[in-house]
Amino acid sequence: MIIGLDIGGTKLAGGLITPDAQLVERRERPTRAREGVDVSLGGVYALLEELAEAAKTHGTLDGVGICAPGPLDPKTGVIFNPTNMPGWVNIRLAEEVSRRLQVPCLVENDANGAGLGEAVFGAARGFSRVFYATLSTGIGTGIIFDERVYHGKNGAAGEGGHVSIDYRSPVRCNCGSIGCIEALASGSSIARRARERLSEYPQSKILSLAGTLEQITAETIARAAAGGDTLAALLIEETAEMLGAWLGSVVSLLDPDIIVLGGGVSRIGEPLFGRIREAVPRRTINPFAVNTPIVPAQLGKDVGIWGAAAVIRSR
Amino acid sequence: MIIGLDIGGTKLAGGLITPDAQLVERRERPTRAREGVDVSLGGVYALLEELAEAAKTHGTLDGVGICAPGPLDPKTGVIFNPTNMPGWVNIRLAEEVSRRLQVPCLVENDANGAGLGEAVFGAARGFSRVFYATLSTGIGTGIIFDERVYHGKNGAAGEGGHVSIDYRSPVRCNCGSIGCIEALASGSSIARRARERLSEYPQSKILSLAGTLEQITAETIARAAAGGDTLAALLIEETAEMLGAWLGSVVSLLDPDIIVLGGGVSRIGEPLFGRIREAVPRRTINPFAVNTPIVPAQLGKDVGIWGAAAVIRSR
Repeated sequence: MIIGLDIGGTKLAGGLITPDAQLVERRERPTRAREGVDVSLGGVYALLEELAEAAKTHGTLDGVGICAPGPLDPKTGVIFNPTNMPGWVNIRLAEEVSRRLQVPCLVENDANGAGLGEAVFGAARGFSRVFYATLSTGIGTGIIFDERVYHGKNGAAGEGGHVSIDYRSPVRCNCGSIGCIEALASGSSIARRARERLSEYPQSKILSLAGTLEQITAETIARAAAGGDTLAALLIEETAEMLGAWLGSVVSLLDPDIIVLGGGVSRIGEPLFGRIREAVPRRTINPFAVNTPIVPAQLGKDVGIWGAAAVIRSR
Repeated sequence: MIIGLDIGGTKLAGGLITPDAQLVERRERPTRAREGVDVSLGGVYALLEELAEAAKTHGTLDGVGICAPGPLDPKTGVIFNPTNMPGWVNIRLAEEVSRRLQVPCLVENDANGAGLGEAVFGAARGFSRVFYATLSTGIGTGIIFDERVYHGKNGAAGEGGHVSIDYRSPVRCNCGSIGCIEALASGSSIARRARERLSEYPQSKILSLAGTLEQITAETIARAAAGGDTLAALLIEETAEMLGAWLGSVVSLLDPDIIVLGGGVSRIGEPLFGRIREAVPRRTINPFAVNTPIVPAQLGKDVGIWGAAAVIRSR
């Protein structure tokens, strides 16, 4: 049995994964990290001990995998100081969990973990070279080779959200660089682009669907587009073209077996995927790009639990 | 002993590499592929047989590595139809060489081969994850992990020259995509940018140093810049910023141990490298980028011979 634990800004979610890849004993606790409240380490240990106890009725516990927001060091299992995790500074999480539960523990950042989860248990099962992206508030990505996360020299690889597609863009990314795909095509960037252009499209339904300017999300825009909204359709088209240019570059560089897209923006669905699939072959030199599958993630809201379990399973 | 053969647009160059990495028995023959004249397969076989004969005086021949312009299939050793190689269509080169010389033969594209050469014998010896780029008429790149070329799913990986840094650029690349770094910062792109702006800088010495507009190269611009030419200095600065944005994206994605830059444009030297080293950390989220070495290639004009030998050595 493996415990997979997903530490997020709004929830802790954990579960037991059986050797035949069934998720049993799923538990969830709210966290308030997004509101600036510390994620309690005590709460993390309590949930893990509860799951370890539950594991006894199923078999032997082989290890604990944890997905957490970066930056962190996957080699040592130390979590540095994630922006989303107030109060967490240089936490030696893997070591402490391993000491408490007397099993191996590995920690992985959320996007790498989600990518590994999809490669081992989800949409990319059986594919050797996987490029995974969570298109959410930000854009996190992971490169998975043969069911292992590619970490690079310093454990900092796989930050595809900070590949720039527009090096002279007026838009500066939170990371300090310019024209990163995260700063142009993430959920919050799509919402920003919507807000900037609403006055040009007074007939748009986006604002009334959202309620307030602040509540505009990729989901609002998807719903508006489905209802025939011109601005919403345009925003999706532009987003797909940007993501297509970005993934075209990834395909030129990595020639992956498959590309998996998850996260809230990916739930726009076919209007987005269809356009991305059309754009990528135009945006790469790779003549095989037309055959590279570009598919939605399969693991949904539990991707962090599955990903965390996959970290242990493929160690 | 290993034979390394470099098939290029203007020359065939081959040599014997000894087990202790000495290049002995170097031979060179002119080709006229750049002028549209077929590279004679007979000439390739004759040079290889000559080197195989010479190998007998040094020891046993263990294999033949060949670097050639792509597209080609490194797994089967079939060369498709390189633009630079008129008359070469689906040549089963590895198979034929292996049959003639009765030793293993492997074929690799020139940028991957050069990268592998630098990783095994040159500037990146001892580094696990190497990003190599030839900044020449075009921009060819190679990704080398643990002394092996990363080929991707279809053997088409490592085409970093077709990573786009400007997805809405007015400049369309030869590959059909938009804003590829090759279309903006290769030697021919730098020369094009110089020609486009000469009229704004009537005092520039670039044209008189080159002779004619067509003869402007990166080398002319480097010489002009060294002499205090304003336009030349500006072109180098812009080129470094573009290459910095591009390599910043590579560092975000791959977190390599080292970046090696070769080719004619790299011979601009410190005025280019200094600016690239300054730009990359600004252009990536990777906090370790300041420590990523960005160094000139070491193997010079024989990089194709060394690279070809490395293909056999690390097979």
